Amino acid sequence: MSFIISDRMTGVEGSMIRELFKLGADPSVISFGGGNPSAETFPVKEIEEIASKVLKENPVSVLQYGLTEGYTPLRETLKAYLSKKEGFDFEKNELFIVSGGQQCADIATKVLVNDGDVVLTEDPAFIGCLNTFRTYNAKLVGIPMESDGMDINALEEALKTNKNVKMLYTIPSFQNPTGITTSLEKRKKVYELCSKYDIAIFEDNPYGELRFAGENVPTLKSMDKDGRVLYAGSFSKVMAPAVRLGYLVFNKEILSPVTVAKQATDVHSNVLFQYICNEYMTKYDFEGHLEKCRSVYKAKADLMLSEIKKNFNPKVTYSVPEGGLFMMAFLPDGKDAYPFVREGIERKVLTVPGVAFSADPSKKLNGFRLNYSTPSDEQIVKGIEILGKLTNEWC
Amino acid sequence: MSFIISDRMTGVEGSMIRELFKLGADPSVISFGGGNPSAETFPVKEIEEIASKVLKENPVSVLQYGLTEGYTPLRETLKAYLSKKEGFDFEKNELFIVSGGQQCADIATKVLVNDGDVVLTEDPAFIGCLNTFRTYNAKLVGIPMESDGMDINALEEALKTNKNVKMLYTIPSFQNPTGITTSLEKRKKVYELCSKYDIAIFEDNPYGELRFAGENVPTLKSMDKDGRVLYAGSFSKVMAPAVRLGYLVFNKEILSPVTVAKQATDVHSNVLFQYICNEYMTKYDFEGHLEKCRSVYKAKADLMLSEIKKNFNPKVTYSVPEGGLFMMAFLPDGKDAYPFVREGIERKVLTVPGVAFSADPSKKLNGFRLNYSTPSDEQIVKGIEILGKLTNEWC
Repeated sequence: MSFIISDRMTGVEGSMIRELFKLGADPSVISFGGGNPSAETFPVKEIEEIASKVLKENPVSVLQYGLTEGYTPLRETLKAYLSKKEGFDFEKNELFIVSGGQQCADIATKVLVNDGDVVLTEDPAFIGCLNTFRTYNAKLVGIPMESDGMDINALEEALKTNKNVKMLYTIPSFQNPTGITTSLEKRKKVYELCSKYDIAIFEDNPYGELRFAGENVPTLKSMDKDGRVLYAGSFSKVMAPAVRLGYLVFNKEILSPVTVAKQATDVHSNVLFQYICNEYMTKYDFEGHLEKCRSVYKAKADLMLSEIKKNFNPKVTYSVPEGGLFMMAFLPDGKDAYPFVREGIERKVLTVPGVAFSADPSKKLNGFRLNYSTPSDEQIVKGIEILGKLTNEWC
Repeated sequence: MSFIISDRMTGVEGSMIRELFKLGADPSVISFGGGNPSAETFPVKEIEEIASKVLKENPVSVLQYGLTEGYTPLRETLKAYLSKKEGFDFEKNELFIVSGGQQCADIATKVLVNDGDVVLTEDPAFIGCLNTFRTYNAKLVGIPMESDGMDINALEEALKTNKNVKMLYTIPSFQNPTGITTSLEKRKKVYELCSKYDIAIFEDNPYGELRFAGENVPTLKSMDKDGRVLYAGSFSKVMAPAVRLGYLVFNKEILSPVTVAKQATDVHSNVLFQYICNEYMTKYDFEGHLEKCRSVYKAKADLMLSEIKKNFNPKVTYSVPEGGLFMMAFLPDGKDAYPFVREGIERKVLTVPGVAFSADPSKKLNGFRLNYSTPSDEQIVKGIEILGKLTNEWC
C-alpha cells in the first residue's frame, strides 16, 4: 500500500533542529542546543513520597479513569493560585488540565482554526507550537521580534492585510527561542490590536514562574476584558517534564468544543501526576521550590552572560533574559547564523540557528539560540570560549 | 469576543451519553452504563513497588523529557511480545507509545484523513473514536454489525459508492459497544475488500488480551501483507486506565508524519508509567495477571448472561461476548431502545442506547449496551431483574 498523507501533515517538514541534533549526538559535544530544564530542580524526594503514599493508601483513586477536564482538586488549586497571582477571572473562564503545554496549542488550534486560516506568530517562535499550527493547515505569518517584543507596526500591518486571521501566538515572558520579555507597553498594544481586529490570543507561558531578574510584567490574560486570551501553563519547568501536565485557561463560551477536543485526543491526562502536583502545591513549600528553581537558572544565565561578555566579538549582540531557559545571540546584520552554527558543531559546541524557529524556514536569520539550563558550569565556560573564538573569525 | 468555532468541531455534538449519565449520577442508580475496567484487576502493589524503587534510585530517568516515539525498552518489549503472539512484522512496521488507545485514533486520523474524506466504521462503534474522526471533519459511513462482524455486502457497497474513502475503523475482538467478535472468515473478507479498494484499516484492539471464552482469532494486523493496517493497543484494561498509555503499530512508510503528529500533540507520553509497564511486563508475572483479569471478567459476564436468561423477555436477544467488558441486548425489531433506556434510568438502572454509538445519531436502533466490568455481583443481579421486568412490559 502507498499511503497518501493528509494535506495538513504534508506541510510539516522534519525539523532542521533534529538534523543538527544528530550531528550533536556525539557525547563530546557541549550542548547549548536542548531545552531541558535542569534536573537538579526536580523535587524528586517529594514526588516519590507523595506517589508512594497514595499508591499504598488509595491507589484506585489515581489509577481508574478520571475526568476529561482534569483532577478537580488540582483545578481548584490552580484557579485559586492564578486568581490571586494574576487576577484571572474564573467567573468567565475555565481551566482544564492537559497533557503538557504543547497540548494547549493542539486543543486551541483544533477548536478555533480552520484549514487555511492565518495564525500570526512572533518570529522566531517555539517550533513545537508552530508545527502544531501547521498540522491544522494554518497559514503562519511571522511578526519580527524586537528587543522588547513583537514589532507592533508589523503586527498591525499583518492584521490589516491578511484575511481570516484567527489567532496570535505569543510567549510574552522569556520567549523561546529569543529569551526576550515583551514590555508592558507592548503587551497593552498587542492586546488592543487583537481587540480591534477581533482575533484570539494564544498566550504561552511555560517559563512565567522562572523570573530571576527585573520586575514582574502582567500577563496578557490578566488584561483580558473581552475573554479573547487562551492561556497555556505548564508543569514541565516547575515540577518535571515527564509529568506531561499543563493547563489551559479559556473563555467558558468555548467549554463544550474544548471538552470534546480533549476527550477525542486522549480522554484525560495522567491522574497520579495530577494528584502529585496538587499535593505538592498545597502541602509542601511550592513557593520555596520556585525560588530554588529561579536561583539555579539565574546562576547559569549570569555565568553564560559574563562568559559571553568576555569571549564574544563585540559586534555580536545578545538578549539578556530576565528568566526562563534561553538567550539568543545575533551575528552582525546580514550574516546567516546557520553556517555559523554548523561550524560550531564541528568544533563540538551545539547551538540552534534562529531560522529553525521561523514561520518561514527559507529565511536567513542572524540569531542563534543558547540554552543555559542543561549544561554544567564547566561546559558553559568552555563552550562559550569556543563560540567566542568563532565569533571573532566571523566578524 | 464571540468565538467562531472551527468547522471540524462544529460537527461534534455533546454526546447523548453524557446527558444520560447526568440522569444516572444519582448514587442509588445501578450503572451498567460505564466502561471502566474493574479496579480489582489493577496490579496496585506492583505499580507502587516499581514506582517507589525507580523514584528513589533513578528519578531523573523517569522525570526528564523523553523520546517522542516512547521509552525504548518498553517499545522493544512490546515488539517482541507482538511478534511472538501475533506475528507482527517489525521489519516493515514501527511501534510508538502513545497517551492511551484514544490517541492512536487521533494520530492515525491526523496523518491520513483530509477534511471531507470518508471513514467507514462498524455501526454502532466506540463513540470516542467516532468523535475523533469527526474532529478532523471526516464523513462517517456506518456498516451495520451482524452477530459475526460487519455486514460484508454493506461494506463492499460503501467502498463502491463512496468517494475518497481513506480508512475503515474496526474493533474485531469483543467490540465496544456490541461485545461482538468478528469471525476469522469475515476478518479475511474485510482485509481483502480493503486491499481491493486500497484503503487503510484502523484496527482498535483495547480488549484483545481479555478473551475468556472461545478460540483465539488472529488480528487483522497479523494478516497484513500490504502494510495497510494501523493497529492500536492499550494498557488501560490490562494495567490501569489512568496510566494513559497505548501503542500504535504502523507501516514504517508513515514514520515521519506519525512522529511529527505525536510531537505536535503532546511531545511524548508519561515516562514513569512507560517504565512501570515495561518492568511489569518483563519482571513480573504478566501472563498470570492477564489470566486473573480474564477470570474476573468471565465471572461477571457469566453472571450477567445467566441473569439475563432468567429475567429478560424471550423476544429480547443479546450478544454473548467471548471477552472484553460489554454485551448488547436487542429489543424486538422496530423498537427504539432510547425510550427503553430512559425508562430504565427512571427505575434506577443505567444502560446506554446503541444509537449513542452510531455513525448516524438520528437513527433509531433497538440495541442497548450493558457493561459488566464495573457493577458488583449484587448490582448485576438486581439491575438485570429490574431491566427484565421492563423488557416484559415492552415486548
